[in-house]
Amino acid sequence: MTYQAPIADMRFALDAIAGLPEIARLPGYEEATADLVDAILAEAAKLAGDVLAPLNHSGDRAGSVFENGVVRTPDGFQEAYAQFVTGGWNALPFDPAFGGQGLPWSLATAVQEMWQAANLSFGLCPLLTVGAVELLQAHGSDQQKSDYLAKLISGEWTGTMNLTEPQAGSDVGALKTRAQRNGDHYLITGQKIFITYGEHDLADNIVHMVLARLPDAPEGTKGISLFLVPKYVVNEDGSLGQHNDLRCVSIEHKLGIRASPTAVMSYGDSGGAVGYLIGEENQGMACMFTMMNNARLAVGVQGVALAERAYQRARAFAFERVQGKPLEGSDGAVKIVRHPDVRRMLATMKARSEAVRALAYWAAGAQDRAKREPDDARRKAAQARLDLLIPIVKAWCTDVACEVSSLGVQVHGGMGFIEETGAAQHYRDARILPIYEGTNGIQALDLLTRKLLRDGGTAMKTLIRELRDGLPPAGDGAALAALRPPLVTAIEALEHATAWLLDEGARSISKGAAGATPYLALCGSVLGGWLLARSAVQAQREGGSFAEAKLKTARFYAENLLGETAGLAGAVIRGAESTLAFGDEDF
Amino acid sequence: MTYQAPIADMRFALDAIAGLPEIARLPGYEEATADLVDAILAEAAKLAGDVLAPLNHSGDRAGSVFENGVVRTPDGFQEAYAQFVTGGWNALPFDPAFGGQGLPWSLATAVQEMWQAANLSFGLCPLLTVGAVELLQAHGSDQQKSDYLAKLISGEWTGTMNLTEPQAGSDVGALKTRAQRNGDHYLITGQKIFITYGEHDLADNIVHMVLARLPDAPEGTKGISLFLVPKYVVNEDGSLGQHNDLRCVSIEHKLGIRASPTAVMSYGDSGGAVGYLIGEENQGMACMFTMMNNARLAVGVQGVALAERAYQRARAFAFERVQGKPLEGSDGAVKIVRHPDVRRMLATMKARSEAVRALAYWAAGAQDRAKREPDDARRKAAQARLDLLIPIVKAWCTDVACEVSSLGVQVHGGMGFIEETGAAQHYRDARILPIYEGTNGIQALDLLTRKLLRDGGTAMKTLIRELRDGLPPAGDGAALAALRPPLVTAIEALEHATAWLLDEGARSISKGAAGATPYLALCGSVLGGWLLARSAVQAQREGGSFAEAKLKTARFYAENLLGETAGLAGAVIRGAESTLAFGDEDF
Repeated sequence: MTYQAPIADMRFALDAIAGLPEIARLPGYEEATADLVDAILAEAAKLAGDVLAPLNHSGDRAGSVFENGVVRTPDGFQEAYAQFVTGGWNALPFDPAFGGQGLPWSLATAVQEMWQAANLSFGLCPLLTVGAVELLQAHGSDQQKSDYLAKLISGEWTGTMNLTEPQAGSDVGALKTRAQRNGDHYLITGQKIFITYGEHDLADNIVHMVLARLPDAPEGTKGISLFLVPKYVVNEDGSLGQHNDLRCVSIEHKLGIRASPTAVMSYGDSGGAVGYLIGEENQGMACMFTMMNNARLAVGVQGVALAERAYQRARAFAFERVQGKPLEGSDGAVKIVRHPDVRRMLATMKARSEAVRALAYWAAGAQDRAKREPDDARRKAAQARLDLLIPIVKAWCTDVACEVSSLGVQVHGGMGFIEETGAAQHYRDARILPIYEGTNGIQALDLLTRKLLRDGGTAMKTLIRELRDGLPPAGDGAALAALRPPLVTAIEALEHATAWLLDEGARSISKGAAGATPYLALCGSVLGGWLLARSAVQAQREGGSFAEAKLKTARFYAENLLGETAGLAGAVIRGAESTLAFGDEDF
Repeated sequence: MTYQAPIADMRFALDAIAGLPEIARLPGYEEATADLVDAILAEAAKLAGDVLAPLNHSGDRAGSVFENGVVRTPDGFQEAYAQFVTGGWNALPFDPAFGGQGLPWSLATAVQEMWQAANLSFGLCPLLTVGAVELLQAHGSDQQKSDYLAKLISGEWTGTMNLTEPQAGSDVGALKTRAQRNGDHYLITGQKIFITYGEHDLADNIVHMVLARLPDAPEGTKGISLFLVPKYVVNEDGSLGQHNDLRCVSIEHKLGIRASPTAVMSYGDSGGAVGYLIGEENQGMACMFTMMNNARLAVGVQGVALAERAYQRARAFAFERVQGKPLEGSDGAVKIVRHPDVRRMLATMKARSEAVRALAYWAAGAQDRAKREPDDARRKAAQARLDLLIPIVKAWCTDVACEVSSLGVQVHGGMGFIEETGAAQHYRDARILPIYEGTNGIQALDLLTRKLLRDGGTAMKTLIRELRDGLPPAGDGAALAALRPPLVTAIEALEHATAWLLDEGARSISKGAAGATPYLALCGSVLGGWLLARSAVQAQREGGSFAEAKLKTARFYAENLLGETAGLAGAVIRGAESTLAFGDEDF
């Protein structure tokens, strides 16, 4: 089956949760009229459903292939990518001065969800290019911008991120790749691993963003510099010159996202690859941080996308597959969606998918405000909210993708375990999401240390106050009011866990860290339930079947899923000591 | 890395939880002396670690291959299986009259865990043979027993179960394979799918247990008969005769357990395969039920096995991989086991693994008592306990295997997503366990309807009483007493959910069914926490480092994991209405 972008829910989340109508009134975003948004979503949905989705399964079967230093992407990827570039899809949120369309990130986020849902392996290529564009926009010299930015924004060239080395994964500071000054450029030498689309056949040039260390650099993250290292050196007239001294050594044999090449890259086998410093020497990590929010949000959106895709596939199967008699009544065999346990699985998948979408789009809305709010205080408030939400979006949405894609396999029964069905691919693909772009454990530590403890809980307390203020009012009809009590209980659990971390966790960072992951899951679960309730409230204003479904979904979440918050808060508060009590010999 | 059978914990669970010393005093089990048990565990551990485990990854890479009607298992499987047969391992729990060793099922369960942990794909072959032996022992004619039983018990021939057809999965009653009387035998015609080891090159003959329908049979499950259909018809002198009219059409391309062939089987393409009726006509389902408890227990044990295997791999990696600096202190980079979040993951994996082992072995002990207790009341009580536990063992242990193998991937970070590492294989392999031998949704319904509602809650209430009586006494030292409060809370949650199901669930089976899966998870979680606490109490009597670790594990479980019971009970009690409120149009 193919993929149909859930435009109605996307549009709803954009308007009611991200606040796109207000965002479109911010300076620079005036083009994002309601009509244009509709047109963009409709056109993107066509490309995603008609072109990218049909290549998802065949791409997985074929995989990208490495032979004699060359990577061949699966059949159809080249044509699809050409269509993607021709359509101008890569340029959506970027600077019009370099060919971008200057549209809000929240809108680009919805479109991004479509690419990732249709074909995660394909979608990774533009996702990485976005990161390269952001780095260049923020830190590139005028010359670098004029040499590279237009081609990257159009997607004619693609970008990569080169951080990881065999001994330097989560700990980027341990990297050893070297950079030597050499006139107006640098010579780069070293090996990088896990480089997504490090080599491929979709574009004429590949622009590698490479972290490396100068000979006299301080140790750790303070001695890291960022370099632009093109596959082909660009001549002064903009044409492509010599092949740089870099090569793809091999590509990985992976659990999922098999159509996307994950490369081992070697730089400087013949003396050094030509690289250009971006920003200042030893400021590489600071440069990376400017793009990290967006990259982590993008991976969270991949989680939204896979959850939606897995849900659509399971729903189609459940409405088609006939098996078993109903528990009540005397009918013959029925479609399996009639069985309460299958309904529970589908409702879980739907509720989780819509919850993570609401969360990711909410964060994207904050990102737009953090970029464009003219009022200083409001802009800073939006940035603080974004910073707080990002680790939750990245980790919780991707954990949910794993949960939902696993349920998707289960709905299919035995057929789910057969690769031809497609459900298994989503399950395999989803598993990378909690790992890359900072493991979810790293996100939890980021939430604890940089987002909660560093400001003494200010941003989190502001959020919790907003959660309380935004509860469905008791007078808003019985159905909506019924959402209140479980939400209040969940918010209280979040308050207790927060208070404990600000107290005990601040005193002993190890104790706090032991509870960081359940704390992040707690935040995700509470926010998911609250955003669905808010969605239900907003949708009621229009009424109709969409509003009905939203209300049922919010209620299902509140009564079936939100109860997990009690255990999660307990694990934060009571779990740390017993975790830390384990000696090495106890494992 | 290889697999090292956790003999100390196995032996502990056998003695302290399953009660092997008392079981060895039951008539027929007298041979199971402590020395013999030690020797068997030690020898099995060698075969598992030295022979089967090294074939796990290579077998996964190669897969079983189907060519021209023939299935070739991966390199090394033939030799390993020959060693397995020569060692007499298949015969452990079977009737000595046919070459079996007559040892307790609980002991066989521990040994079974080793095969499955070392190599799940390999282990499936004997696991299926066990099912065929059980059917024959219980329902075969004297002639059938003398023709087939010794060869199956030795493992020289292997057995299969042929239930599923394209339109008949969870609903076995929908099967269409036909059987026609033909003198002293029957002619079988039809197609079966998902037949594990339906064709292979490990043994001289394959004995298919096939469910089929006679022309005049009643509809549904009441019209199903069981037939023994050998790949090669057996001559009167016991030699192998003609190839029967059956063939393997293809094998599936699967998410996991790739070394094991999952066959589409066609019977009777040339007029009908020779089949022999087992038991009476139209009594096939009753026959299948006699082996179902053991088959479901065996799949639960596969869950235990994979959880253990994934844990061992992650533990080895965490004690070896150096990455990142500690949160406290000023050391350089450390092994990742130093990081609290990695410790939390490992502790979760360990606690869950030991909890599911305790649960599965406890059920296996009940099975031995249900077979051999001379006292009628005690034997019946054991059978009632076994019946109640079986769906929980099957579903909860396998869900835990998925959870633990996913954590195993996560501990490895990026390396976990690379197939060469091995963690990903466990994640893929584990995913079949909640599906086959009755999906976990079917198990939950079995628990609700046949185990809870049918006897009005008698067996469950007896169990809950035992849980209360078996709490760590408040006076048994502060550390043990600390386990009490979270357990009491969890048991109360189980009581509430049980009472609700016996009331509301009995009135509306759809409502009950909507909460069946969280109810089963609730049972599993409570039993797991209680069994670990009981283990901690028992282990303290001996003291030492094993007892220390048990206590820490029980405490970690009680304080970090057991809190999930609140949400699960809530989903049972409050979740049904909102699940059933979804109309088709709401999905």
